[in-house]
Amino acid sequence: MFSRNVVSSERRSEPSDTARVEAFSDGVMAIAITLLVIEIHLPDTEGGNLLHDLGHLWPSYFAYAASFLTIGVIWLCHHRFFGRIRRMDGLLHVGNLLLLLAVAFLPFPTTVLAHHLEDGGPNARVAVAFYGVVASWQTAAWFVMWMALRRNPDLFEPGYDAEFARLESKQAVIGFVVFDVIAAIGLAVPILALILYLLMILLFGYTSTRSHVFGRELEGSR
Amino acid sequence: MFSRNVVSSERRSEPSDTARVEAFSDGVMAIAITLLVIEIHLPDTEGGNLLHDLGHLWPSYFAYAASFLTIGVIWLCHHRFFGRIRRMDGLLHVGNLLLLLAVAFLPFPTTVLAHHLEDGGPNARVAVAFYGVVASWQTAAWFVMWMALRRNPDLFEPGYDAEFARLESKQAVIGFVVFDVIAAIGLAVPILALILYLLMILLFGYTSTRSHVFGRELEGSR
Amino acid sequence: MFSRNVVSSERRSEPSDTARVEAFSDGVMAIAITLLVIEIHLPDTEGGNLLHDLGHLWPSYFAYAASFLTIGVIWLCHHRFFGRIRRMDGLLHVGNLLLLLAVAFLPFPTTVLAHHLEDGGPNARVAVAFYGVVASWQTAAWFVMWMALRRNPDLFEPGYDAEFARLESKQAVIGFVVFDVIAAIGLAVPILALILYLLMILLFGYTSTRSHVFGRELEGSR
Amino acid sequence: MFSRNVVSSERRSEPSDTARVEAFSDGVMAIAITLLVIEIHLPDTEGGNLLHDLGHLWPSYFAYAASFLTIGVIWLCHHRFFGRIRRMDGLLHVGNLLLLLAVAFLPFPTTVLAHHLEDGGPNARVAVAFYGVVASWQTAAWFVMWMALRRNPDLFEPGYDAEFARLESKQAVIGFVVFDVIAAIGLAVPILALILYLLMILLFGYTSTRSHVFGRELEGSR
Repeated sequence: MFSRNVVSSERRSEPSDTARVEAFSDGVMAIAITLLVIEIHLPDTEGGNLLHDLGHLWPSYFAYAASFLTIGVIWLCHHRFFGRIRRMDGLLHVGNLLLLLAVAFLPFPTTVLAHHLEDGGPNARVAVAFYGVVASWQTAAWFVMWMALRRNPDLFEPGYDAEFARLESKQAVIGFVVFDVIAAIGLAVPILALILYLLMILLFGYTSTRSHVFGRELEGSR
Repeated sequence: MFSRNVVSSERRSEPSDTARVEAFSDGVMAIAITLLVIEIHLPDTEGGNLLHDLGHLWPSYFAYAASFLTIGVIWLCHHRFFGRIRRMDGLLHVGNLLLLLAVAFLPFPTTVLAHHLEDGGPNARVAVAFYGVVASWQTAAWFVMWMALRRNPDLFEPGYDAEFARLESKQAVIGFVVFDVIAAIGLAVPILALILYLLMILLFGYTSTRSHVFGRELEGSR
Repeated sequence: MFSRNVVSSERRSEPSDTARVEAFSDGVMAIAITLLVIEIHLPDTEGGNLLHDLGHLWPSYFAYAASFLTIGVIWLCHHRFFGRIRRMDGLLHVGNLLLLLAVAFLPFPTTVLAHHLEDGGPNARVAVAFYGVVASWQTAAWFVMWMALRRNPDLFEPGYDAEFARLESKQAVIGFVVFDVIAAIGLAVPILALILYLLMILLFGYTSTRSHVFGRELEGSR
Repeated sequence: MFSRNVVSSERRSEPSDTARVEAFSDGVMAIAITLLVIEIHLPDTEGGNLLHDLGHLWPSYFAYAASFLTIGVIWLCHHRFFGRIRRMDGLLHVGNLLLLLAVAFLPFPTTVLAHHLEDGGPNARVAVAFYGVVASWQTAAWFVMWMALRRNPDLFEPGYDAEFARLESKQAVIGFVVFDVIAAIGLAVPILALILYLLMILLFGYTSTRSHVFGRELEGSR
């Protein structure tokens, strides 16, 4: 009777058990990525030169593009991650909410970066380092999510196991260290830190979309 | 022919009848949880010390984290609740809209708390009490929702009954009283009220995610 | 071969053809209903009395609650409407986008109402009338949507016909007239107009949720 | 065994593989279209004439309506586009994120247009041209999306091929040129550029909804 119960519950959960988690997460990420534009403010220059003012906003455009790219890539990774998940447990919910916390917070360091990037002084360095530290939070959330899967590999779709989760959780630790090293570099050479940061995000993005086509695909599931 | 009609309509409604309610509610909760960050404003200190300014915003960070946790836990409870619901009726719609009203309003007491937490004076006490009172509204909304199920247990998925709804509606009343007591404590000892509030929310969150793994699960439905 | 094509395309469209329209509309309505709270601003009263300030915001609370109720009821009507629709055509898309335009615009008259309600002078009358006129736009959008169904009853789920759409489109015209009469009353007696407005919205809400339980339900579809 | 794997993975992906992409995109477009209203600010005229002030905001209403129409039409095109797509690959993800970047950015040129439309001077011309240039970005994103389908026609639902994608990608290039020509016209005759812009958007919208009823419909897919 117990196994029948499990079977029927699994059949029922197949289409829907992570569906609402994905829908809620999509909502948070879609809003965070769209709210970024609110922080781009045009100075009120009634008699001024609009073309010059628009050009003068380049730090806002840069911060907007960097955070859009960051959230876009996190969404791609989230999409791939939940393609491998069949069920949720408490710790996985906690990890996912931590990830959403980090994503939803991102518009704030984005604004800080946009406001302080132009003055090359110490505030620009703090702004870049702050941005990098907040970016490292998301890797901590991924670590919690992979730990949930190490502890409970039943949450996986068929084809993945605790060992797979262990390797991914190690990568999350490496990501955490790298982003915080980039933040530290930002205190010394902000421009180098920003370039390294963008390269890291592009690398994550490239990895997450390529694996839809080949690679892990072959290990058993999308 | 009538019963055939009912059967086919129930079969059709199984995957979709609460789906749009959940989607709309997910949207409102996702937006409310993401809008919280808009209220974190950095003081314009062109010549100042950004690191000091960022640290100075701790009441904003605290209020942000508390409200993020609150909405995250409400979402977990909402997710678990609608996993048990098969159909909507008018009163259940009313209760759900009341819950969304309370959730969507939360960014306002969050801002009030963030602005007044630092000055230890009477305004900080009012801000904490106001926050607790608004938090108690959501339990009133849950009460309406459980009352809808007591009145009409047909809305439940199989495995739940009016008695189950009665017990849960009693817990909602207790929650209402507890949050308002916490609000009253906030008028005297704000810091104690905030600690009690966070403990209550964590307790709700722990309960709601554990039962995905064991416990009520065994009573018949997710 | 042509009819086979039609059959297979209808089978395929059954679960999904209005799904994305509903998802997008849910998104717009969820955001509009949640953005309302952004417009509640606390006056900066560092040395003032917070409790008094919070009470002083009653026009904002009233405008917030009225618009939350309005969008909540529109959502209920939208939910019921699309429960009867199987496919979209161009005019139905236009009507739906007009409805979303009216809903997404509502935060603006809400702010105007919140700011001007308290001064009983001519500006309060204009604010109430403006709010009523914007509310009447949504009935114009409903009129377009029902006209699309009169013209093309194939869009309906089985059990509804052009005559049903004609009756509903007449009700939309009546609603348009009533909301604009209420707006005109607002120019003379604002408080009476607000009471009539809320009664109208509650009446719409009551009608839309009751019919989930009995009434039109029996005519053939959910 | 490999082909069995592929078949089962395609069967599994059929209902869901683009579902989350559409949900996330719906979220971004719904938020962008709803955020537009935030930028309509009423001047604080406590003692002034509200009716006059409301009328004075016509550039805001115009910019709001133009951008609402733009995003609404982009959503219709997106809806039609993904009705033809079965799977995602990396380049298609990139193109879709570029489109969302352009959509999510639109509230900024909308605000710029609303603020500068009234002064007929050089700033109005720059504002119109800026708006047109940002509008041209979305056609560049469509170009990337169609190129992904030219390169990998397997992403299509049955009934479409690389030749179809090639024709559509050419139309995207034409659209890019036309929007930038309109932007250039805006530097000389802003009012003419706005009229041409609205006509272009209405043409896109008309095309995208008509084809639900006849035309491409017959080529094989919804």
